[in-house]
Amino acid sequence: MAKRQLTPKSEDMSKWYTQVIQQAKLADYSPVKGCMVIRPNGYGIWENIHDALDPLLKGLGVQNAYFPLFIPMSFLNREADHVKGFAPELAIVTHGGGEELEEKLAVRPTSETIMYEMYSKWVQSYRDLPILINQWNNVVRWEKRTYFFLRTTEFLWQEAHTAHATHAESFRMVMDGLEAYRNVAEESMAIPVIMGRKSNAEKFAGAAVTTTIEAMMPDGKALQAGTSHDLGQNFSKKEAFNIAFQNKEGKMDYAWQVSYGFSTRTIGALIMVHGDDDGIVIPPKIAPTQVSIIPTEQDEAIMHRCNELLVNLKKGGIRAKLLFDAEHSLGWRMNESEIEGVPLALVLGKKELEANSVTAKIRYNHSQETIDYATIESQVQAMLNHIQQQMFAAALKKQKELTSSTESYDEFKNIMKTKRGFLKAFWCEDETCEKTIKDETKASTRCLPFIDKNGQVAEEKGTCIKCGKAATHRWLFAQAY
Amino acid sequence: MAKRQLTPKSEDMSKWYTQVIQQAKLADYSPVKGCMVIRPNGYGIWENIHDALDPLLKGLGVQNAYFPLFIPMSFLNREADHVKGFAPELAIVTHGGGEELEEKLAVRPTSETIMYEMYSKWVQSYRDLPILINQWNNVVRWEKRTYFFLRTTEFLWQEAHTAHATHAESFRMVMDGLEAYRNVAEESMAIPVIMGRKSNAEKFAGAAVTTTIEAMMPDGKALQAGTSHDLGQNFSKKEAFNIAFQNKEGKMDYAWQVSYGFSTRTIGALIMVHGDDDGIVIPPKIAPTQVSIIPTEQDEAIMHRCNELLVNLKKGGIRAKLLFDAEHSLGWRMNESEIEGVPLALVLGKKELEANSVTAKIRYNHSQETIDYATIESQVQAMLNHIQQQMFAAALKKQKELTSSTESYDEFKNIMKTKRGFLKAFWCEDETCEKTIKDETKASTRCLPFIDKNGQVAEEKGTCIKCGKAATHRWLFAQAY
Repeated sequence: MAKRQLTPKSEDMSKWYTQVIQQAKLADYSPVKGCMVIRPNGYGIWENIHDALDPLLKGLGVQNAYFPLFIPMSFLNREADHVKGFAPELAIVTHGGGEELEEKLAVRPTSETIMYEMYSKWVQSYRDLPILINQWNNVVRWEKRTYFFLRTTEFLWQEAHTAHATHAESFRMVMDGLEAYRNVAEESMAIPVIMGRKSNAEKFAGAAVTTTIEAMMPDGKALQAGTSHDLGQNFSKKEAFNIAFQNKEGKMDYAWQVSYGFSTRTIGALIMVHGDDDGIVIPPKIAPTQVSIIPTEQDEAIMHRCNELLVNLKKGGIRAKLLFDAEHSLGWRMNESEIEGVPLALVLGKKELEANSVTAKIRYNHSQETIDYATIESQVQAMLNHIQQQMFAAALKKQKELTSSTESYDEFKNIMKTKRGFLKAFWCEDETCEKTIKDETKASTRCLPFIDKNGQVAEEKGTCIKCGKAATHRWLFAQAY
Repeated sequence: MAKRQLTPKSEDMSKWYTQVIQQAKLADYSPVKGCMVIRPNGYGIWENIHDALDPLLKGLGVQNAYFPLFIPMSFLNREADHVKGFAPELAIVTHGGGEELEEKLAVRPTSETIMYEMYSKWVQSYRDLPILINQWNNVVRWEKRTYFFLRTTEFLWQEAHTAHATHAESFRMVMDGLEAYRNVAEESMAIPVIMGRKSNAEKFAGAAVTTTIEAMMPDGKALQAGTSHDLGQNFSKKEAFNIAFQNKEGKMDYAWQVSYGFSTRTIGALIMVHGDDDGIVIPPKIAPTQVSIIPTEQDEAIMHRCNELLVNLKKGGIRAKLLFDAEHSLGWRMNESEIEGVPLALVLGKKELEANSVTAKIRYNHSQETIDYATIESQVQAMLNHIQQQMFAAALKKQKELTSSTESYDEFKNIMKTKRGFLKAFWCEDETCEKTIKDETKASTRCLPFIDKNGQVAEEKGTCIKCGKAATHRWLFAQAY
């Protein structure tokens, strides 16, 4: 039973990350620069993220739709910050059907512009609002240096785009969208996150306010796991997309808009947060395979029981898989289940058959239990629930260990040189200080944390960690992916 | 209650088609030439097609994955017929990230080449086979003249690509894929189809054999609703993608490959087959809304009962929707449900409340029934099942009326000038005759029908309808979309 060559996570997380993704068959390099292939093991996670998030969005009244991949260049130019943010990352189509195009087309880096052109057509009166649309699609943002899942030229996401008659209503949607992301990150992916709002320098190109969920990786670097934007009337105003409507009082107004997105990037966070030296570890709720059933040998009675178990677990709605073929040894198969991060492996051999039991191997903490075959289905369900909770608890513990607070810039610099992590510190909200801190420590403002689900923040009295001027908020700083 | 202006289907199907799609909010024109916007009402149908087809593919062992949108031009050139077929339809990316690209990239018109390059990397031994991968994605084939759903530059589909150690196994997959399409078309979309194989002239660019499901539209024109291709070793051979493997006997061989796809095009067929002068009609199994609940007026007792009904139907897994807002009249709301093709509308007013009943309006045949409120849930489920069956039966009857057989070319020409439809006729299988028939009658060979699920065809003795030479098969001809 030769173990694969996998660099220990504790030794070199970056090397481990690249190796584990290929060995667990989550993704592979593609021959197209900057693009990766998401293999079935990786795509299965994305399908389960979809199945967790999509009903939450539908619960907010948001419906799925599909808008064109291509965006006329002139559209991108209509919102000044938006084009400034995205122009350097565009892929441009210049020819179609054998002819040079009159107007070049960008492959969508995000769909605000093409969608809002349509919204402008569909909205005349407050009766036409709200518009609550989402799409699950692919987007392209040209990258020079790429990294599996975290930074690729093409990635998959959902982007919801809503338009409302009032700012009170649109801001509620900003927060509801963000809460849906927290829910999926924490409750399905077992990744604890901090909710908050971005600084002006870090916000989305075109947004009035960007809210975010920020996750902490075991190497002390933060990862932005999802963002929800209050676009105000920046895109709806006359000079941009002119989404004008007659309000209840008969006066003309411009729609209040929101966009929010959650991408395959989060799969990178999942790998880093939960993986260990033996491979990836997937929380049960989004694991494509929740239970591997592993017969120790090719014996009729053993195989019969394994197949019976497979059928019964599937009947109970558990995503179980029989890991057996004549070509591969027991060791190879155990290793396969381990590296691919299946949360629970049930091993069945002659010993288990005689004792009417099953040996359960729990992936995340490498523990082992003998369970009674008579009550196996309810026990497996209980174990999966427990694993889900424990994986979140472990990740939360790690996140808390990696969160500190300081009022001294020397300590700030020192922490960012050593354990890193989230660092809470007063900042005066002047962009000069923010930039200097980033230049000197590589730490950027991740967010100003919310204290409730309405986006409230704590007001305090303090002095900016950098310039010493008065400051009213403690921001969350971190080096980031 | 002013009815919308909708050209009757019987008067001008083409005009009706374009109008009904916009009025039922299935899709809209986009500002990008050749591309359309699929609105929530249309995308909801696609989601339900996905939910019907995806488990069938998974049942064949096929797993979902994702491959890059972009394909290096050199890849397309590796299979001669493939590039000849697709080159005229490509959208080409020449610039990325502000720089001109060294090698131009095509936006995928289909993914054979990019996928098979990876398969070549993943396959060394028969142990690595079969590879059974599918992707749900967007593809681009440049079109000059476009038509909602049926012909657009960008469309959505699934494309399954499998690789096998033997041709017997790969051919089984070709037929299983086609059967999955028949299942979704007939049993979910209520569209009867003919299964068969394409002529050499009509087959997929790069395939050895193309199989198809062909549907008949009410105007007598056929629509290819899904195709499954036996690629033989055309793409796996050394000069193409070199998907070589060592077989069980230790000898080198090339993988046997299959691809099959089903697209948003079929939504066009759905609209044409089932729609009527009052709008579209969607079969219950794939209707985004299966039941509209329509209160006649804003009365507390009525609204209470409608909400109770909504909750109960939803609990039973029925996709029900309450059609009420203070802004819109009863007539407007009834009309909305009708034009959008909701299979069943349940109307509830004072009269119904007193009688403890509900008035059920069945969309496809405009009939009306009074049903007892006490047993409404089971009755609604039974009615939806019955509607599904009856819609298929009606479409099948229409398809049979539009199917004829002839041994006279004069009659062939006459039929193609009048009622059109499917026409069975002997053909010698010489491409010259096929081309002449098409030039003279606009009818192409749609397929050679199968007589079983193994792809067997009937052998008969006859003479070619065009040249009079010996022929052994009756082919299915039709003018086509």
